[in-house]
Amino acid sequence: MAARAGVSRATVSRVVNGEAGVREVLAVKVRRAVKELGYVPNRAARSLVTRRHDAVAVVIAEPETRVFADPFFALQLRGISKELTARDVQLLLLLTEGRDDHERVGRYLAGGHVDGALVFSLHLDDPLPGIIHGAGVPTVFGGRPGWAGSARYVDCDNRGGARQAVRHLVGLGRTRVAHITGPLDQTSAVDRLDGYRDVLPAADPDLVVEGDFTPAGGERAMRLLLDRRPDVDAVFAANDLTASGALRVLRESGRRVPRDVAVVGFDDMLPVAEQADPPLTTVRQDIEGMGRLMAAMLLRGDVHEEGADGADADAEGGACVVLPTELVRRESA
Amino acid sequence: MAARAGVSRATVSRVVNGEAGVREVLAVKVRRAVKELGYVPNRAARSLVTRRHDAVAVVIAEPETRVFADPFFALQLRGISKELTARDVQLLLLLTEGRDDHERVGRYLAGGHVDGALVFSLHLDDPLPGIIHGAGVPTVFGGRPGWAGSARYVDCDNRGGARQAVRHLVGLGRTRVAHITGPLDQTSAVDRLDGYRDVLPAADPDLVVEGDFTPAGGERAMRLLLDRRPDVDAVFAANDLTASGALRVLRESGRRVPRDVAVVGFDDMLPVAEQADPPLTTVRQDIEGMGRLMAAMLLRGDVHEEGADGADADAEGGACVVLPTELVRRESA
Repeated sequence: MAARAGVSRATVSRVVNGEAGVREVLAVKVRRAVKELGYVPNRAARSLVTRRHDAVAVVIAEPETRVFADPFFALQLRGISKELTARDVQLLLLLTEGRDDHERVGRYLAGGHVDGALVFSLHLDDPLPGIIHGAGVPTVFGGRPGWAGSARYVDCDNRGGARQAVRHLVGLGRTRVAHITGPLDQTSAVDRLDGYRDVLPAADPDLVVEGDFTPAGGERAMRLLLDRRPDVDAVFAANDLTASGALRVLRESGRRVPRDVAVVGFDDMLPVAEQADPPLTTVRQDIEGMGRLMAAMLLRGDVHEEGADGADADAEGGACVVLPTELVRRESA
Repeated sequence: MAARAGVSRATVSRVVNGEAGVREVLAVKVRRAVKELGYVPNRAARSLVTRRHDAVAVVIAEPETRVFADPFFALQLRGISKELTARDVQLLLLLTEGRDDHERVGRYLAGGHVDGALVFSLHLDDPLPGIIHGAGVPTVFGGRPGWAGSARYVDCDNRGGARQAVRHLVGLGRTRVAHITGPLDQTSAVDRLDGYRDVLPAADPDLVVEGDFTPAGGERAMRLLLDRRPDVDAVFAANDLTASGALRVLRESGRRVPRDVAVVGFDDMLPVAEQADPPLTTVRQDIEGMGRLMAAMLLRGDVHEEGADGADADAEGGACVVLPTELVRRESA
């Protein structure tokens, strides 16, 4: 959306959140882009009518070991923390050892201790969304949930970003472009795979290998790829951590990046992308900004209807903000 | 205590917590060591009489950026999480941007949402302990609080561990042993400095430089040390992250470790210590075990009086467990 309006993301965020400090000429541009892209601000709907506890729960549907190992979560929490602190609302991070603990999370949420919940890293077969729905607290999801019904969420344009990555590799003249996916029980991974297939609908299925968004998963997948298709000349990795693992295996195999194999990641997670060897070309998403928007949406009802046309949203209806991505070129592709 | 009893720490923990699965002969040894070291189990006192919420708050008196950057906190949280999950109690990590948010933390704790609080990384001039006391929730501190009054806490033997480190360096024949401290508004840093001075009471004050438990602080302090005393031949760094920064500066300055300058850290935090260049000789403390003990102490009242002799503890009185440390030799000293 920032690209469409020709302004910075910070400006989009300020306009969308009704904050001061944006010149009217820019605000008009942003509102026009919002309209063109099908988002309609709907300031009144679904704000937290009763802020009784001044506390918001954050639930990450991963074991605590993963939460502290993957900087993606720290970045999203940073955005959430800044936004909640600015409104003097306490952030409660509910940690678990795994899925078996989600019933207990539901009991805490239902217990009247928080004003709302921010939930991310959902997996398709996880009972957590049902449990949270049963708890009856206002909720905003990070990432598009995998069910057909309505939900409020903030996401980035995973499919469009994947298309940017793959088109870039094709534009470099690469003809055997592989994809190491994320865990395919998460919509972000499925959407990125769909973006790859949009550009390369006839790609050899052997060029697609499932990873899990971790460096170790990237290593395993890259080894499998090199076994199956030693002639691979490009890899689109579903995130930067996966790419870092793939780069390690390519180096071990004696292949030069980007000369023999070009690699593109996803996230632009610093310092992972910058300190990769070679520095990683990747698809940037504003992870911290997504966290801020989730918190703002929950607390102020600043929700933006996809495809709606100015009508008030049904109080039980869905709403989302999908943030744009951009390709950041470094040395790996 | 494990060393005194000649058994593993896990065994000490099981005996101390009244768990099954320990042979009686070992249990007797542990109880004898507990007695000799002045800890007397006092199972009845100060348990959580009313567990109404099945939730415990964890408060780390650092900004969230530090919480996610320093693996010490992740390790302690891992121990706390395992212990709470085993008892089906929800862990709530209360994140803040900094000290200005501690009043809000106090309001949440006082609001009747949790059964107790685990608090760590206190700084001496922080109003947090007073705020938490005012909130009236049962609390266990990680690390000895800096006030004279009573408190329940779990700590490691910081002073004894520092003595182990410095004696090791002196034993290697080093005569110009420096110390890069932690932030001296924390008792762990003060106690480690006291341990250094126990062994080297007449050391040149120029050999002691204040750090802040971060790699960047270790770099700054090491540069200052090399300016002041270019003849330094050993460094005791107050933690492994500090040591990793000091090693970097020593390498840049062309000094070889350990030949020119021997370096010892504190924590034995993996993978920091193992992946240091060269791998780090350090003082091991059981960080995850400290987290487990804090949680167990809060939930079951398994507290151990220092210096008491079997008498029931005053319900408002202090209680502590101080865990032993051990020197782990690798290549840096």
